[in-house]
Amino acid sequence: MKRIALLTSGGDAPGMNSAIRSATRIAIDHGIDVYGVRRGYAGLIEGDLHPLTSRDVGGILERAGTVLESARSNEFKTHAGVDKAVRNLEKFGIDGLIVIGGNGSQAGALSLWAKGVPVNGVASTIDNDLAGSDMTIGVDTALNVALESIDRLRATASSHHRMFIVEVMGRDCGYLALAAGLAGGAEIIITPEHSMPTEEVVRRIHSAAERNKRHAMIVVAEGSKNTAQELHEALCKEKDSFEPRLTILGHVQRGGTPSAFDRLLATRLAARATQLLLEDNSGFLVGLLDGCATPTPLEEVVGKHKPLPAELLFLADAMKL
Amino acid sequence: MKRIALLTSGGDAPGMNSAIRSATRIAIDHGIDVYGVRRGYAGLIEGDLHPLTSRDVGGILERAGTVLESARSNEFKTHAGVDKAVRNLEKFGIDGLIVIGGNGSQAGALSLWAKGVPVNGVASTIDNDLAGSDMTIGVDTALNVALESIDRLRATASSHHRMFIVEVMGRDCGYLALAAGLAGGAEIIITPEHSMPTEEVVRRIHSAAERNKRHAMIVVAEGSKNTAQELHEALCKEKDSFEPRLTILGHVQRGGTPSAFDRLLATRLAARATQLLLEDNSGFLVGLLDGCATPTPLEEVVGKHKPLPAELLFLADAMKL
Amino acid sequence: MKRIALLTSGGDAPGMNSAIRSATRIAIDHGIDVYGVRRGYAGLIEGDLHPLTSRDVGGILERAGTVLESARSNEFKTHAGVDKAVRNLEKFGIDGLIVIGGNGSQAGALSLWAKGVPVNGVASTIDNDLAGSDMTIGVDTALNVALESIDRLRATASSHHRMFIVEVMGRDCGYLALAAGLAGGAEIIITPEHSMPTEEVVRRIHSAAERNKRHAMIVVAEGSKNTAQELHEALCKEKDSFEPRLTILGHVQRGGTPSAFDRLLATRLAARATQLLLEDNSGFLVGLLDGCATPTPLEEVVGKHKPLPAELLFLADAMKL
Amino acid sequence: MKRIALLTSGGDAPGMNSAIRSATRIAIDHGIDVYGVRRGYAGLIEGDLHPLTSRDVGGILERAGTVLESARSNEFKTHAGVDKAVRNLEKFGIDGLIVIGGNGSQAGALSLWAKGVPVNGVASTIDNDLAGSDMTIGVDTALNVALESIDRLRATASSHHRMFIVEVMGRDCGYLALAAGLAGGAEIIITPEHSMPTEEVVRRIHSAAERNKRHAMIVVAEGSKNTAQELHEALCKEKDSFEPRLTILGHVQRGGTPSAFDRLLATRLAARATQLLLEDNSGFLVGLLDGCATPTPLEEVVGKHKPLPAELLFLADAMKL
Repeated sequence: MKRIALLTSGGDAPGMNSAIRSATRIAIDHGIDVYGVRRGYAGLIEGDLHPLTSRDVGGILERAGTVLESARSNEFKTHAGVDKAVRNLEKFGIDGLIVIGGNGSQAGALSLWAKGVPVNGVASTIDNDLAGSDMTIGVDTALNVALESIDRLRATASSHHRMFIVEVMGRDCGYLALAAGLAGGAEIIITPEHSMPTEEVVRRIHSAAERNKRHAMIVVAEGSKNTAQELHEALCKEKDSFEPRLTILGHVQRGGTPSAFDRLLATRLAARATQLLLEDNSGFLVGLLDGCATPTPLEEVVGKHKPLPAELLFLADAMKL
Repeated sequence: MKRIALLTSGGDAPGMNSAIRSATRIAIDHGIDVYGVRRGYAGLIEGDLHPLTSRDVGGILERAGTVLESARSNEFKTHAGVDKAVRNLEKFGIDGLIVIGGNGSQAGALSLWAKGVPVNGVASTIDNDLAGSDMTIGVDTALNVALESIDRLRATASSHHRMFIVEVMGRDCGYLALAAGLAGGAEIIITPEHSMPTEEVVRRIHSAAERNKRHAMIVVAEGSKNTAQELHEALCKEKDSFEPRLTILGHVQRGGTPSAFDRLLATRLAARATQLLLEDNSGFLVGLLDGCATPTPLEEVVGKHKPLPAELLFLADAMKL
Repeated sequence: MKRIALLTSGGDAPGMNSAIRSATRIAIDHGIDVYGVRRGYAGLIEGDLHPLTSRDVGGILERAGTVLESARSNEFKTHAGVDKAVRNLEKFGIDGLIVIGGNGSQAGALSLWAKGVPVNGVASTIDNDLAGSDMTIGVDTALNVALESIDRLRATASSHHRMFIVEVMGRDCGYLALAAGLAGGAEIIITPEHSMPTEEVVRRIHSAAERNKRHAMIVVAEGSKNTAQELHEALCKEKDSFEPRLTILGHVQRGGTPSAFDRLLATRLAARATQLLLEDNSGFLVGLLDGCATPTPLEEVVGKHKPLPAELLFLADAMKL
Repeated sequence: MKRIALLTSGGDAPGMNSAIRSATRIAIDHGIDVYGVRRGYAGLIEGDLHPLTSRDVGGILERAGTVLESARSNEFKTHAGVDKAVRNLEKFGIDGLIVIGGNGSQAGALSLWAKGVPVNGVASTIDNDLAGSDMTIGVDTALNVALESIDRLRATASSHHRMFIVEVMGRDCGYLALAAGLAGGAEIIITPEHSMPTEEVVRRIHSAAERNKRHAMIVVAEGSKNTAQELHEALCKEKDSFEPRLTILGHVQRGGTPSAFDRLLATRLAARATQLLLEDNSGFLVGLLDGCATPTPLEEVVGKHKPLPAELLFLADAMKL
């Protein structure tokens, strides 16, 4: 193995740049050339590859997003697209590939591996919906951004009787909502996995008011059955002493300065994925399992559903007054 | 004058606690007793007054919201309500009142003053829509919270072709949107004072894309004619290379830790309002004019429209490219 | 078991309040009374115990420090002191104790356990020097505070040729320095475990300058053989193109708003320690091992040296370039 | 006038990049070419000038430091150095110059103006020691960084009996210490303008302890007669119930993300300085006076002492318990 390439794909996550830096420096340390693919699989198909030096990846640790950029590629979902990508890897003399991204990105990595490309994945998505990694790169930062907003809402809430509805990210997976809600002391947490009828929300708010709770915090994952906006509209029609207020965080959660946890996690996972690749071990997703950077075969991971941690579900319930 | 009272009213603003601390300590320093009225005019009508010591207002500088709490009072809008308030002030032996709040709160202060109560106002609202103060308490903190979100959106935007729509506070006044948009390098700023038809927004986005701008930031004040949600829906239907994403900050802007500027402004304005009261000068709003804590008669201020600063409007236009 | 008590001891750590809240609510959920001991073992000796309700521990999640306060107690290091503590626990009818703190605190817990008191510890110290827990409560927040400062120094460094020396906490253990240095891209990391002669520091700085590095970041743990101040003085005398600048973070690292990680970790560990206690399992420190809240006998933990993680040491070396 | 140049000089200040962006876009808007001088007067002497486009100054608003870099130049302090600079300006066809910086930088601007170069200054230094501007660019951000640290120290202080000594920037001017101390509720503020003998500090601490104050915050400007380190050593020897802890913030204060206030101030001041230059009005420092971007002749400003604001001195005294 003489030359490897890196790409970031799917939604960007804080910490991806630490992963790029780590993989680059580990490879260069072993005397291996590194190329960066720009704009994910789209750039791979278009041959948008450029050499990466150790200096190129200096000073990027503290930046959110990915210096390699990301994009969607419908073409890569076709056989012809994957073949084009394989040919470009050959053309640039790439002996191995590191794919930094979430579920969709790792599905792409598996397609390439099926075509004989040595490829390892690095678990990175703020949604934390990727099997094979208890925590994925970006989750911790996104969680802290969401929590900071919840703390601020609570700070203003203490001056008024108010009810706050906060929508956090998570289309299929309620991890961010569950963890932010638990860490932020939310009264109600609504996820794609555990929805709650509006009547039940109203019932709980009234019951809290009866116990003299002066405000209520409701955290809703974006992909929940009843959306934050619908809930807000329904609650606005209710007659009670609380005035519902809506916050939709949106992509603000992607753009936080990467936390120490995410930088260290990204450095560890990307180093491990690169070391494995250089040792001719490929076809793995490297994720955090039991506190360690651990490889799992991509085929065991891709498309697999990852349930919410039972411990956090239990605690969210037990912490509620 | 032997005893004064303080109240906070209307929407809470970061820095209100610094104002409470400042007024309390200035008064006590002059040998004057201080009472805090809880929950604004509602508490004044209900006689919810309690002594405030110098120690009571220690350790509150860094907290958003108001330790005196705030509430709406429909009763205070009636003559009977104002009379009740006046009687309670007499009952508690209050010789003068400090009202910390925005437009509605200062209208209330004027009603009391018309009944013979010595009262001074302190300009405090995150909307910056109060005449008599170039900057009101809370604006700077709210601005920094909004700006932090805009910075984060821009950080993630650089990895994708994206368009972000951010709704900031401001029902009647676009100051926060204008200042946050200018400081955050927004491409488009929409305010209640200066609306923009959706077609014009679309035209500008396309024109920016033609000049190879890779992303666009649109800041919308909550009270604008076309709301952020409507704009988002309209733009989602457009065919172009940008994917619109919506963020609604909501009350997060009220809950930021008060900035140095807001703590110093609050300390200065409340001290001046209190000093004037103790010198038997009342009927004023104390605000920041030309860099100084300056009194203006309440009747010249209440209900008066405050236009957006021409300098910022010019600069927002000149900085767009 | 009908009544338990909680205490926090030693240096405060962000997240301790989440642990207090978690233990309290888990116990109350099981129908158990909870008492809080104020000021650690000093308060235990003085009988400074007070009932804690579920409401008492509401709204404390986001606050650094510990609402139960902490203090040193020389008396508790004597047999007479421990006996007094045991008598007070009996006097207040306490059937079990939760001790939230670091090495010294858990040594105290072991003394009580040796006297027959059912006690479990919760691993909490920003130094991360406690065996039995890969990460202790408070480390993540302290790390993020240190990292934020390193990021800021780097931001200003890019405008000048500068060398920054940052002292972070860690008297016996270099974990914070190692992790912050790695996550912050420091050129040189000096710890109690791995010191570096000043001449070697100078040699590396010159060598970096020759490779056109424009600035250098040196992270020093407070307990290192050559202190940050000594290093600063020595470097000031050196003739080169860098001007050394010193930052000593000190207790700022203790006072950060608890991160999501620390709140969740504290909630998990304290819940587990309490559940074990209620099941009559005591004499354990509950820490994070392999990603799980895991009990280890106190006697295996107390006073034991915890080495720096080999993976981070390797990565810190590999990332330097 | 067809072409102007910009330079940043002296210590970097958060907001300098906003000033660069503003001057560039205002000039380009008027059809004027813009050149950036790298590394201040050193670069001017070496002819290190490069064209700046509108796009070059995009995306720099949120970055601390200065993209034009800064450096010291002893050569520029000589007549020969100034002559070289003048010749380079001629060589590059520069018709006017904008100098963004503090006292020393504006002294340099005056030297060039005395040689017939049309030059305007923009008031920028975190020390706030520049006459002709009530607040200079960078002060607000530095203040918020210092305040954040003071808030954190206070948060941990509440768990222990502790005394904190915080050194903030300010070699000749105590503005940062005064304003941060006032906004952060410090018990004692020590500045170059108002020193305090150690015995007096000790006396006040004891007196506070007698009034049951549980902790004390001492803010010391770096240029004070008794330094923070000396004070710390002296207090460590004192016998009392407080344990003194030292924090030296250092350059962390320069590296904060520019606040909204600093970005807006920089945009306003630089725009005004550029507009004046384009109208052939030069020899001015543009600063914030009475809330407005206001020009003052450089010769009235350079080297002039700026006293601490009497209002803040009074309030710092009045707010002390």
